[in-house]
Amino acid sequence: MNILFKNIDVITGDGEVLYNTNVMVSDGVISHVGKDLPESCGVIQRVVPGRGRLLMPGLYNTHTHVPMTALRGYADDLPLDRWLNEFIFPIEDKLDARCARICAEIAIAEMLRSGTVSFSDQYFFCDEIASAAAAAGIKANISRGTVGGEDFDPTTDTRMREQIALYDKWHGYDNGRIRIDFAVHAEYTSCRPVWEAVAREATDRGAGISFHLSETQGENERCIEKYDATPTELFYKAGLLGKGSYAAHGVWCKDEDMAILAETGTSLCHCPVSNLKLGSGVARIARMQKAGVNVCLGTDGAASNNSLDMFEEMKFAALIAKGPYHRPASLPAEEVVAMASVNGAKSQQRANCGLVRVGYEADLVMINTRVPSLTPNHEPYSTVVYAANGKDVEMTMVRGNVLYEKGEFKTLDWERIREEFFAYAAPRLFRD
Amino acid sequence: MNILFKNIDVITGDGEVLYNTNVMVSDGVISHVGKDLPESCGVIQRVVPGRGRLLMPGLYNTHTHVPMTALRGYADDLPLDRWLNEFIFPIEDKLDARCARICAEIAIAEMLRSGTVSFSDQYFFCDEIASAAAAAGIKANISRGTVGGEDFDPTTDTRMREQIALYDKWHGYDNGRIRIDFAVHAEYTSCRPVWEAVAREATDRGAGISFHLSETQGENERCIEKYDATPTELFYKAGLLGKGSYAAHGVWCKDEDMAILAETGTSLCHCPVSNLKLGSGVARIARMQKAGVNVCLGTDGAASNNSLDMFEEMKFAALIAKGPYHRPASLPAEEVVAMASVNGAKSQQRANCGLVRVGYEADLVMINTRVPSLTPNHEPYSTVVYAANGKDVEMTMVRGNVLYEKGEFKTLDWERIREEFFAYAAPRLFRD
Repeated sequence: MNILFKNIDVITGDGEVLYNTNVMVSDGVISHVGKDLPESCGVIQRVVPGRGRLLMPGLYNTHTHVPMTALRGYADDLPLDRWLNEFIFPIEDKLDARCARICAEIAIAEMLRSGTVSFSDQYFFCDEIASAAAAAGIKANISRGTVGGEDFDPTTDTRMREQIALYDKWHGYDNGRIRIDFAVHAEYTSCRPVWEAVAREATDRGAGISFHLSETQGENERCIEKYDATPTELFYKAGLLGKGSYAAHGVWCKDEDMAILAETGTSLCHCPVSNLKLGSGVARIARMQKAGVNVCLGTDGAASNNSLDMFEEMKFAALIAKGPYHRPASLPAEEVVAMASVNGAKSQQRANCGLVRVGYEADLVMINTRVPSLTPNHEPYSTVVYAANGKDVEMTMVRGNVLYEKGEFKTLDWERIREEFFAYAAPRLFRD
Repeated sequence: MNILFKNIDVITGDGEVLYNTNVMVSDGVISHVGKDLPESCGVIQRVVPGRGRLLMPGLYNTHTHVPMTALRGYADDLPLDRWLNEFIFPIEDKLDARCARICAEIAIAEMLRSGTVSFSDQYFFCDEIASAAAAAGIKANISRGTVGGEDFDPTTDTRMREQIALYDKWHGYDNGRIRIDFAVHAEYTSCRPVWEAVAREATDRGAGISFHLSETQGENERCIEKYDATPTELFYKAGLLGKGSYAAHGVWCKDEDMAILAETGTSLCHCPVSNLKLGSGVARIARMQKAGVNVCLGTDGAASNNSLDMFEEMKFAALIAKGPYHRPASLPAEEVVAMASVNGAKSQQRANCGLVRVGYEADLVMINTRVPSLTPNHEPYSTVVYAANGKDVEMTMVRGNVLYEKGEFKTLDWERIREEFFAYAAPRLFRD
């Protein structure tokens, strides 16, 4: 199966722009990139005309909770404790597997429509999330957040059992399209026995590890008071850090924490919109990058964003690194695109993903630049980060499969999902 | 001429939500809002089905420079002085009237497509801007920025003569749809003779006054050093402040400045994206509002944003008022919508504009909420500020005239504009 993007402008994801280029996709992999055409490739099943279009690497949303679309806009502009205790937790208690599945599908539809080709999720009802991702054709790294006190027993803990069962059932599905990682929810909802058990189970399997890290000032300070160590230091000692590990937020990481993240190869999933909206603060991302940390981007759940649009996340990431520090040259567009694509692929332990380059998986996004808001398009990286949003996406392709194109989902029945949300999930969650 | 939005959800702009309501537009004015239908209204020429749609006040972009679409993405991620001196100024020098007109049309197309019904512009080639706005059917307050030294003579100064001619030609066009205001560019590009002349000419005519104010720390500090007074204090003494006056940015306004703005009724046009992108800082908007200042929103020009999407501006405004101050409850969605609509109308001296209310001009925006990214839509103000963007707009109406609907511009020929940009403006501006 060959698909040719003909005479298209390309941003490769590593800073390069190729104008008026041919990109061939063969059996899910990028097989040719160049002004010329490949000498022999067999029959070309589809030619996509590239005039007025921009091809770019698909986006990696490395921190989200897909079933939380149920709570999009349900409770905003509230202090964090009221938001969680009065609104979020009570609804989450009413979630069942079917609700989680429907809401995950809403999120996946939103992500595919806005150019996201892969996501990392930490939540519960993970079997439904994996099943929804599997059916939709999107890539996903899925983990079950573990919590627990000093009496935590990994051999009996339900969450840990779920996590292992999830791994056994789904890890490696469709040639690694679905990956199962292990997860500690966060330092403040767990303790050493949890951390060590998760580290051990993950390490035994070579699985990744997901966790929330130093999101709010309060949680960070209480940790230091309690342990005389930062969450990063504690997790390091417990064996949770490493190349397959990825921390969400890191707003309150100290310089020493950044050094540890960099040294261990732990990725940092920056969620600027959620951090701003919940009043958590602004992660010091330019410094993180300087320290050598692999920084990627995530939207967080729809309840705290309230969008899963990675283009918007890129713009927030770029601007929040400049404005408050009076540094307009900080975090240029090329770096932000890399954060949203190839760095994300790295955090998910996906080799040969996240760039438009021969031999890489064909996870591609095409945007239409012939609209007023993207005219002119002087510098394509700038266009993508500062001018475009997810609604400019005309096609989202994962491993050579077109999953979204011009208003149509190829693997999802949006009307069915929408109707099922209002027929089943909404009454269950929001009516007493 | 009667148009009925039938069974539609409405956000009025002053905090209210009306579900499943009928909104009648008669001869450009909102004539009925209610569950019922008006008893007698004559023939209804068009019924717009409201299911799955949200009707809201049209948005007011109160600070922009429409011809600067030419420079969208031309030079990003640079220190402010290099950005201006090496990139922006040299291109602006090459602008001619035809370029300005084409680029203004690009901006107007982008604004109509994203729900903006009115804009305030301070630039040059204002005759072309006014002419483009007049033809497109959008509302606009247009001003010619004045600059000058101690030898400034208003009777001979070209810019001042242009400004007055502009006023005489365009002010009040189409029953006040186009308004001409007077403008001082900024404190740092002018001095007392300019300020006093502009104040006098504007006051004589009852015209509004536009100016940039305390945008960067450097400009603000140099002013205080030079005059022992802030720009706000100087402009106040020169008679530039008042109900029809509107200041852009105000990032470095002191508390005393805010009190002066509030007392005089001067509006503050908050441009969060531009302020972040250029590294100017973060305006203290929650404090401004507390001080009683009429705060409205603007995108600034496309060169420093690089988008004219007021939905995006709303989200940035809301979030930047929360995150850095750790105040998630600051600047809630209802207030942000008011900033982007009715407060903007006030800054433009437009009575009975900016709300969905009987007797108000029918400047309306309809968005489609049946898309994944806006599902569910628990709280419509939240949906608009935190989840939607300009590409969700399905219809933009100004004074009862549909100017944009489902991909089609009714008063603009987008393909012609685009072709003319690449045939005429691009070669002139960017090729030596």
